[in-house]
Amino acid sequence: MIPRLFVSDPLGPNHRVVLDHDRTHYLKNVMRRSLGDEVGLFNGRDGEWLGAIESYGRAGAWLLVTTMRRPQMAGPDIWLAFAPVKRARIDLIAEKATEMGVSVMLPVMTRRAEPSRVNIERLTNIAIEAAEQTERLDIPEIREALTFDRLIAGWPPERILFVCAEAGAAEPIAEAVMSRKGRSACFLIGPEGGFAPAELDALRKLPFVVPVGLGPRLLRAETAAIVALACWQALAGDGATPESRPPFRGEFVS
Amino acid sequence: MIPRLFVSDPLGPNHRVVLDHDRTHYLKNVMRRSLGDEVGLFNGRDGEWLGAIESYGRAGAWLLVTTMRRPQMAGPDIWLAFAPVKRARIDLIAEKATEMGVSVMLPVMTRRAEPSRVNIERLTNIAIEAAEQTERLDIPEIREALTFDRLIAGWPPERILFVCAEAGAAEPIAEAVMSRKGRSACFLIGPEGGFAPAELDALRKLPFVVPVGLGPRLLRAETAAIVALACWQALAGDGATPESRPPFRGEFVS
Repeated sequence: MIPRLFVSDPLGPNHRVVLDHDRTHYLKNVMRRSLGDEVGLFNGRDGEWLGAIESYGRAGAWLLVTTMRRPQMAGPDIWLAFAPVKRARIDLIAEKATEMGVSVMLPVMTRRAEPSRVNIERLTNIAIEAAEQTERLDIPEIREALTFDRLIAGWPPERILFVCAEAGAAEPIAEAVMSRKGRSACFLIGPEGGFAPAELDALRKLPFVVPVGLGPRLLRAETAAIVALACWQALAGDGATPESRPPFRGEFVS
Repeated sequence: MIPRLFVSDPLGPNHRVVLDHDRTHYLKNVMRRSLGDEVGLFNGRDGEWLGAIESYGRAGAWLLVTTMRRPQMAGPDIWLAFAPVKRARIDLIAEKATEMGVSVMLPVMTRRAEPSRVNIERLTNIAIEAAEQTERLDIPEIREALTFDRLIAGWPPERILFVCAEAGAAEPIAEAVMSRKGRSACFLIGPEGGFAPAELDALRKLPFVVPVGLGPRLLRAETAAIVALACWQALAGDGATPESRPPFRGEFVS
């Protein structure tokens, strides 16, 4: 298995990249890679490249970029808006949404959201690690938290806002997604106590809102996010064709 | 919000139920419920009942069962077989599979599974807590771990075994599930390193096995479990109709 690392530097033949302390430690002490060993590198712009470890120094590890492994491809255009929840659960949302191929994450302060500050830097680091493991070519953009009112006031009207509502009328998720295939979309997941009645009222009046139901069981926020995104990816996203497979697992085919 | 608790005692009008120490603590000190307050009770057999707190004593809390809240209904018949992974992740699998309505969980020792013992009691407690929160009427059955060879040797041939394979040919999950609607099924999730080539070989030769693909990203075991079950519930399970909603969220409808 070749370790994959996200970097911010440009990638191209004979470029050199220096890794920070944490990544150097990971490569040297956790993955036990030696000089000359190969590493996968991606930056969200230039595709995925192979790099060879040239040196381990005080500043970090130096890598020489050699050959392209995969060209850059745009991921699916699917957003996730979510109300902040307790720390362990919000970390899970960042990790899982990244695994599920989300392009943009929007923390939204609904009335019943946990009041704590959203640490965008921590969530971004979690997303980077998840992107490395999940074989994505990019990392999701995690935007600053905004209020519920600002979210709906500034909403791009051509983008469907699927509201995962636990109460009231809603289209079943599969039907809702299949009948709007090809449209740009975002899922909105409420906080643990659900949306406030006034919020649900406001949402249901908006032309771009489609309330969707995720079945008869109450789901935790991170589970709801995965369920909604799983159905979207399988029915309208990039999981619908037989060719849609993780790229680097050929070695396990017998 | 009325707290819901799983009990093993029979439930019926004027039955009395005593809660153990942990549940008593939860009710009294976490949920701060007083004498006379209502609690939802279910045991997987008699439906969901309301009970009133009669007394808090040394042995625990005594509840008087009053009226039926929901009749017992069978949940969907969907199994999950999974290779044991690290403790935090296996706990997540038990929690998430319960939220996703799984009826039976089967830990399977594949070649690359984590070798540690599977603690069925801990996983069952996690499943009970998840069932209480997710408004299920039953708890999933968590079976003792068995080897990969015993799993396939003793497999009930009428039950489809959807193998979530990261490598090799596979049907996209949505197509695989939709074309086998109405069949009893189980999803098999491999360990972190994937199935061994010999295991994939053996699986692909079995008439009841259908390899399914979950899209182009590598998923962690618990994410793969939710994705597979989400697609199954939305397309072939109990999430496909507009009436399929959590039962006790009417209070949030405006």
